[in-house]
Amino acid sequence: MTLPCIGVFDSGVGGLTVLKAMAEQISAHYLYFGDTARLPYGTKSADTVARYAIGAARFLEAQNIDLLVIACNTATALALPQITHAASVPVVGVVEPGAQMAAEVSQSGSAIVIATEATVSSHAYRDALQRHGLQAFEKACPLFVPLVEEGWIDHAVTEQVARIYLGEAMAASADSADVLLLACTHYPLIAPLLRRITPAHVKIVDSAESTARVVRGQLLEDPPRGEAQLSSNHPGAASSDHRTFRFFVTDSVEKFKRLATGFLGRQVDHVEHVDLGG
Amino acid sequence: MTLPCIGVFDSGVGGLTVLKAMAEQISAHYLYFGDTARLPYGTKSADTVARYAIGAARFLEAQNIDLLVIACNTATALALPQITHAASVPVVGVVEPGAQMAAEVSQSGSAIVIATEATVSSHAYRDALQRHGLQAFEKACPLFVPLVEEGWIDHAVTEQVARIYLGEAMAASADSADVLLLACTHYPLIAPLLRRITPAHVKIVDSAESTARVVRGQLLEDPPRGEAQLSSNHPGAASSDHRTFRFFVTDSVEKFKRLATGFLGRQVDHVEHVDLGG
Repeated sequence: MTLPCIGVFDSGVGGLTVLKAMAEQISAHYLYFGDTARLPYGTKSADTVARYAIGAARFLEAQNIDLLVIACNTATALALPQITHAASVPVVGVVEPGAQMAAEVSQSGSAIVIATEATVSSHAYRDALQRHGLQAFEKACPLFVPLVEEGWIDHAVTEQVARIYLGEAMAASADSADVLLLACTHYPLIAPLLRRITPAHVKIVDSAESTARVVRGQLLEDPPRGEAQLSSNHPGAASSDHRTFRFFVTDSVEKFKRLATGFLGRQVDHVEHVDLGG
Repeated sequence: MTLPCIGVFDSGVGGLTVLKAMAEQISAHYLYFGDTARLPYGTKSADTVARYAIGAARFLEAQNIDLLVIACNTATALALPQITHAASVPVVGVVEPGAQMAAEVSQSGSAIVIATEATVSSHAYRDALQRHGLQAFEKACPLFVPLVEEGWIDHAVTEQVARIYLGEAMAASADSADVLLLACTHYPLIAPLLRRITPAHVKIVDSAESTARVVRGQLLEDPPRGEAQLSSNHPGAASSDHRTFRFFVTDSVEKFKRLATGFLGRQVDHVEHVDLGG
């Protein structure tokens, strides 16, 4: 029985929330690439991000992946067409799955999108939501990533910052939105805090979960080598016996390990350093 | 009359506080290089930072600078010897000037150093302060840079975060420290807020100011081409008639311009994009 091999790419540790969501649903070999020497992508231009992401895609392809997940909202928003064009395997980004799920659960036809500055500036989510008939209210929340990386997941300061950001976003939407779309892979870690301060009628959609669902669907529909083992009936029941994980980073292995445990919800013992130059 | 030409290097906009402090004291031509495509250096390893900084040093030397200021605490802490070795002009970093000034003003012989995680991990300030006979209590404050870049210079959240960080640092020093050394170039922007919440007997030393003083001294002592024009008697009276400024960045020119005004205290209209590769 050959399992599919899924490459997961992010600028740092954030994509581990997407890996976690996939690992809960899909038996596969996972190769995770964190471009930690060049993070954060959120402050960089589209050309720079495209160049970095394509370099990482080439590295993962050389490891014989069957499918590449761009588990980075900024890279998806700014460079998915370029990456898909450059790649020789199917590529799944995190924007379209999140937008699709938001469209499924919204009744008011209006959603708030919270993300990094670069993701918001790209308007990739606004455009994707519009294609699904939803109006988007985008709000950049640049302090959430450093707060999560500081470990202040359930902290009074994070709550105060979140109240400010969400208050501004809700006001901009004139309280019409009934979906809050977490359009940054760091945000699932503060989802419980966000849930607590978000009005009950607003559903929280997380692009990590949404992406895992799309990847699973794609592998079921078009299994690589015709042999993918997917536990199709019980999404939460993927066997842990066969799954393997490899982690590659471009900067400090130690820092990645330290943060990774919180993001992945499991100990990460072995991380390999890669130098892509630049 | 030929003015000296000073190259100023930082990973982003933070070094503009050093440029500002120098421009107030020294008539010179200033070339500022912000490696914005690869910031922040604060999360990167020593090897990566050294490689980036030396690339930028080469670029500035090709513009005929007389002196290079590494206006980046992380690059100074992690890579000053390598940069100095690679450079063909005198190099001034920001660590030693700050430590020297701290030693001059401390009476208790004990100082708190606040900085990014990488600067703290390098222990460059601890070592420099020890050489001057001071005991150092280092405290990483990873949220200050994003708070400053969010523009929350005088904001309740920033004050709350600062109270937490400084409270922990003061406790660790058993309240023995009488100097708070701002060992990150972003921190001068929140110096008024820090002053407000720091006990009155604790003096605040800012490495931007300290570095400007050292550069001025070095140019007076060893003027390039023997023609440097320095207003030696009136540090605040440097003529603005002759000073020129050029700004180079490796990523978005627009984002740099937007942030630069707050850091430099003057409008920055013209910024040139440079691609160093990688």
